[in-house]
Amino acid sequence: MNIAAAKAALSHLELDENPVSVRAKSRDFFWYSPVLKARLDHITADFVVAPRNEAEVIEVLRACYAHDVPVTTRGAGTGNYGQAMPLVGGCILHMKNMAAVVGVHPGRVIVQPGCLLKDLDAACKAHSGQEIRMFSSTWATATIGGFIAGGSGGVGSCTWGALRDLGNIIRLRVVTMEAEPRVLEFTGEELHRVSHAYGTNGIITEIEMPLAPAYDWVELFVTTQTFREAAQFAADLGNEPGILKKLITVFEAPIAQDYFQRVAPYMQPGQHLLALMIAPHAMDGFLTFTARRPDARIIWRTDWPDWQREPGPVFEYGWNHTTLRALKVDAQITYLQVRYAAPDHLARVEAVRAAFPPGEVMQHLEVMQEGGQTMFAGLSLVRFTTEARLDEIVKIHEELGCMIFNPHRYTLEEGGRQTVDDRQLAFKREADPKGLLNPGKMIAWDDPDFDFAGVYAYARMQVAG
Amino acid sequence: MNIAAAKAALSHLELDENPVSVRAKSRDFFWYSPVLKARLDHITADFVVAPRNEAEVIEVLRACYAHDVPVTTRGAGTGNYGQAMPLVGGCILHMKNMAAVVGVHPGRVIVQPGCLLKDLDAACKAHSGQEIRMFSSTWATATIGGFIAGGSGGVGSCTWGALRDLGNIIRLRVVTMEAEPRVLEFTGEELHRVSHAYGTNGIITEIEMPLAPAYDWVELFVTTQTFREAAQFAADLGNEPGILKKLITVFEAPIAQDYFQRVAPYMQPGQHLLALMIAPHAMDGFLTFTARRPDARIIWRTDWPDWQREPGPVFEYGWNHTTLRALKVDAQITYLQVRYAAPDHLARVEAVRAAFPPGEVMQHLEVMQEGGQTMFAGLSLVRFTTEARLDEIVKIHEELGCMIFNPHRYTLEEGGRQTVDDRQLAFKREADPKGLLNPGKMIAWDDPDFDFAGVYAYARMQVAG
Repeated sequence: MNIAAAKAALSHLELDENPVSVRAKSRDFFWYSPVLKARLDHITADFVVAPRNEAEVIEVLRACYAHDVPVTTRGAGTGNYGQAMPLVGGCILHMKNMAAVVGVHPGRVIVQPGCLLKDLDAACKAHSGQEIRMFSSTWATATIGGFIAGGSGGVGSCTWGALRDLGNIIRLRVVTMEAEPRVLEFTGEELHRVSHAYGTNGIITEIEMPLAPAYDWVELFVTTQTFREAAQFAADLGNEPGILKKLITVFEAPIAQDYFQRVAPYMQPGQHLLALMIAPHAMDGFLTFTARRPDARIIWRTDWPDWQREPGPVFEYGWNHTTLRALKVDAQITYLQVRYAAPDHLARVEAVRAAFPPGEVMQHLEVMQEGGQTMFAGLSLVRFTTEARLDEIVKIHEELGCMIFNPHRYTLEEGGRQTVDDRQLAFKREADPKGLLNPGKMIAWDDPDFDFAGVYAYARMQVAG
Repeated sequence: MNIAAAKAALSHLELDENPVSVRAKSRDFFWYSPVLKARLDHITADFVVAPRNEAEVIEVLRACYAHDVPVTTRGAGTGNYGQAMPLVGGCILHMKNMAAVVGVHPGRVIVQPGCLLKDLDAACKAHSGQEIRMFSSTWATATIGGFIAGGSGGVGSCTWGALRDLGNIIRLRVVTMEAEPRVLEFTGEELHRVSHAYGTNGIITEIEMPLAPAYDWVELFVTTQTFREAAQFAADLGNEPGILKKLITVFEAPIAQDYFQRVAPYMQPGQHLLALMIAPHAMDGFLTFTARRPDARIIWRTDWPDWQREPGPVFEYGWNHTTLRALKVDAQITYLQVRYAAPDHLARVEAVRAAFPPGEVMQHLEVMQEGGQTMFAGLSLVRFTTEARLDEIVKIHEELGCMIFNPHRYTLEEGGRQTVDDRQLAFKREADPKGLLNPGKMIAWDDPDFDFAGVYAYARMQVAG
């Protein structure tokens, strides 16, 4: 690793070598996890480069390849799995200068990876009343490239499914990390070589995404008396094909009472909360649906605001903003990412609820489409005590038939389905022969015999100083 | 029934008293059914009136009420259940002069009932690139009012579900048949008092419907070697949330070979056919999906036309156009409307296929969304022999767990779920106290004790002359 030589070769580009800002740009939201916080807090790159175009990306990759400098790519750094953290130092490839919306067309947009989700939506809406199908709750600060390389779904997934579902990404343009980097265009089966690969096997320089109409979504909060009713409301609403929606979130009590300061005054103790986004022209259907559930009460709707202090976008209560809001109030809170598969999702949630003492695991459910059915993605809030207990909590979920995407691990496999993604590994062999892209994140590359019995610890990780 | 007095009272309106054209306007596409053909062929009204606005509708209803003249409302008369046929004569209320698109807004349109589906879509597309969510295969000739009063779903239901699903109709304005007709606005739970009620309990004068984006749908024909593969292809495609689609239809061999003259030259004997409409920006996902099925072969796509004679819109092969095309070739063909409910829809179709000798029942399946799952609506082609055998075929389906919406019956109940719709009946009591609206179509009104053991025969029906 010849840092000095790489920096010299790239000195005509936008470089950042200030240790304070380099360290800041070497971090993401890994600190949601006390486990990752303990392991990654000291991580920092040697320098940051922010290419202005694809040619400069190629220059960076060529120079870093020549000098054996690892390259970790980042957008806004809003991931929670340490996706964008350079475990062995080296170069941070910061995409902030590649943020152009290249072209908006009916049903699709071409965009550079560093574009903020918020800016992308604004451009599509201004151009032709369109918006992206789904986004993370960090919409206001996250980039489209980071969402694709480090995310899986989000606000919109209750209608459109996950990013990995066919049709939710149209095309990715990718640069390889070789002596002479190649530029490849991926569609179809090839997309998932590099989507959700944390930048371990290629750098995305252009993205084509499907669009949906940008309606003035009505955002709502709804309370119920029992958790069962809240979960059933969410599942049933997800199953209404004629009610167009963008968000269906369930919060078990006392999440809202304890962590949602602007919502809490409008709730009774013990009430459970739903956060919803409904198309304006679906409101008649939605209100009819809701009126059939006498226990459900609408306490907030953006088309009829009546609170002294408005709560802000409801999607900034859902997905991983729930954890963020809880953490701000109670530093002991962390979370788990749980898959409650259909058709038993309601029963599984109840089984999990029964398995823990009050207050240790609080249910936060997001409705998603999966294989033609609605199911729940759980981003449960967990009151952290020890790593051992956290592992036990994971194990109890798994024994009850739930899949855990463990957000207390920094590898693709442990944070995913705990299996090697052969497409990603095969493409890494081809596109990153020296293994310089985001090292330590793909176990299959570093330690093919790892058995997932314990926590993976990347041997070459920077030592805390 | 004082026809002469009613006509005199309405003489300033657009009246048609010519027996030839009155008879033509007293018919719909009931003749798809040999059973209905035998029973309804002689039916004719006494006169036709075509109101130009809601005030004239009120005049017609007031005059006919005063003179005890039955009123049967029609749009284009493309229904197949005899919906628009005046079983006791009287007045045909023809909606052709009330065809205005009143207003197009983001996600919704306000329209008069006599507007052709085709004209409605053209207006919405021209205004803001929008279109209606679903339509019958008679899109080019049918009206929106007829679709709502006499239809249940169609092209688009694979994504949006049925008309009865919450959110698929927003508002209906309805005039009652009383001494002094009232004008009512229905939303929510009230919508289904009059939707799919054949005009038996009120006259729809204005409609508000949700809209979707009007994409340049890519229309395709795909062949498979086995029926099982075709049905599985359809079910799986219906379950892909990221692939936006408007039509997924399956035709068992030899439907296409025998009845689709422009398609047949591109098919091998024994091959099965799918007709599809896919959003252009979903084509990459669709082609990936299709490539995973080596047996499936695309033989036609509108974005890449290569046939000497283009086949026309693929949706004019699906829904009840399938029956129409078959009838044109073979007058012995009729059909059944079957519900193969999820999650056993594939197995049920196979069970039905095994229950009949070759060529008697040919599978035609339409993918629909229902309660959060995809299922099949079957519009099976049936080679007709006798009424007794047709009833036997119905019975065999029912014994195999399929629900039949019998298109060889002219009543709401027999063509529906064979149960009284209490909402419709209750509203008829209120809105049509003399029972003058489309008499003979609601068994619950005429014969509350009918047990559905045999075929219902309306006692007051016109006698063949």
